[in-house]
Amino acid sequence: MNRDVEMSRLSLNQITTENWSLKEAVDGCVRNDISAISIWRHKIAEIGLKESKHLIKSSGLNVSSVCRGGMFPASTASERQVRIDDNKRAIEETAELDGNVLVLVCGPSPDKDIQESRKWVKEGIESIIPFAEQHGVKLGIEPLHPMYAADRSVITTLGEANVLQASLGSKQVGVIVDVFHVWWDPFLYEEIKRAKGNILGFHVSDWKVPLPDIFKGRSMMGEGVIDIPRIRKAVEENGYHDFVEVEIINQEIWDRPGGETLQWMKNSFAKYV
Amino acid sequence: MNRDVEMSRLSLNQITTENWSLKEAVDGCVRNDISAISIWRHKIAEIGLKESKHLIKSSGLNVSSVCRGGMFPASTASERQVRIDDNKRAIEETAELDGNVLVLVCGPSPDKDIQESRKWVKEGIESIIPFAEQHGVKLGIEPLHPMYAADRSVITTLGEANVLQASLGSKQVGVIVDVFHVWWDPFLYEEIKRAKGNILGFHVSDWKVPLPDIFKGRSMMGEGVIDIPRIRKAVEENGYHDFVEVEIINQEIWDRPGGETLQWMKNSFAKYV
Repeated sequence: MNRDVEMSRLSLNQITTENWSLKEAVDGCVRNDISAISIWRHKIAEIGLKESKHLIKSSGLNVSSVCRGGMFPASTASERQVRIDDNKRAIEETAELDGNVLVLVCGPSPDKDIQESRKWVKEGIESIIPFAEQHGVKLGIEPLHPMYAADRSVITTLGEANVLQASLGSKQVGVIVDVFHVWWDPFLYEEIKRAKGNILGFHVSDWKVPLPDIFKGRSMMGEGVIDIPRIRKAVEENGYHDFVEVEIINQEIWDRPGGETLQWMKNSFAKYV
Repeated sequence: MNRDVEMSRLSLNQITTENWSLKEAVDGCVRNDISAISIWRHKIAEIGLKESKHLIKSSGLNVSSVCRGGMFPASTASERQVRIDDNKRAIEETAELDGNVLVLVCGPSPDKDIQESRKWVKEGIESIIPFAEQHGVKLGIEPLHPMYAADRSVITTLGEANVLQASLGSKQVGVIVDVFHVWWDPFLYEEIKRAKGNILGFHVSDWKVPLPDIFKGRSMMGEGVIDIPRIRKAVEENGYHDFVEVEIINQEIWDRPGGETLQWMKNSFAKYV
């Protein structure tokens, strides 16, 4: 048992129980004494924002984050505006649900010019900062593993996310550290230090060898090679003491009964985080 | 047709025709007017070094590199010594074949302490530098894509390879730039500049979406998202004007007749490199 991390910091990132509706996930958390949840927008869309809000408020759960905004790059200005408008809706939803932060998965490049796409990401975030401020919602830039650079996010390292965060010059924007995305980085601990005070979320899972899949590639903590406690301590030393989300995209786990997954997750959290 | 890159710079990295023996690959290159080859050690082992040398000499082919040394990290000192001894044999083979460079795939970590493994990589390379000097063989540190950090190489970015190269302080050691491994890197062009004068190899293939596989994930140039000419021009501006190896690990390509692959490779080289 790892006594360094309180069970009260555990948050269920809803994608871990993708087989569950929001109601099932909320009920599961309450039944299993999990005090926080990260909500995905496609689950909100299933029942509407009003009903989602009612579910969350009556459960007493904290909302550690809402997933996800981002997806800024697109080849035309009008399409980029569509993406920005969608991010504004995501900010409104996050505010309505009292979410601490909207997680930004910044999006892939529509063509081979990945550097141009990175500029569009910056412009996209810049354009939603005032709206996020008005709504009291923080924006968390989540660097994704470089293997997702072609189809999910051109922001691929914590170093890059830190440079982007600094260039935006707004305390409304911070970064998310997800161990699955960043564990391999030779400059990880320096970059966690640079992110001091700007870390808005900490996500855990594990990197199992061989990787079961590319998109659905994450495993339960303890099943892989990531030194999770070391990374957790580094983010704590640099000012992050908030919820630890368990975010696992894995078909085999999705095929299990959700209640079983939650028990397994709690045990693994206590032992390996 | 891209007129910037001469067809005489094309080299067949032998893994692209994994279905072929060394003799078949050498004959294929000669038949298709390809002037260089990169040889894999498991193919040398099939027929022995003497026969391999005879094949290469009588063909008149250049040997752009030998693949591969490396694999330094191991949990015991005796096992690390076994790896170092194997690297010395690889250096001897490279010298016998008049190879320009031995490519180093540095190896995964035997445990969760990836930073310790990086030290073992450094120690391993340090210990073989004098032997490489005596044999006139250059050592090329190849950073691998971060998705291989857990099972192939703890050296994951060109930045990290540059730091390692500089810390070794020997002109016997340089870096290899493989577009598949580095294309996503936000600091790629700065790091290519930092590598100026130390670039010992340039490898091409492409990143297709979705990726067909993790290990066997590479595609023919032109099939994916990588801006290959831009990266090629950057390595040229920073002093590399030697062979361009086509290195593709892909089951579908391996299942084709080798001659067909070579024709396709030449066409794609002319159009997309």
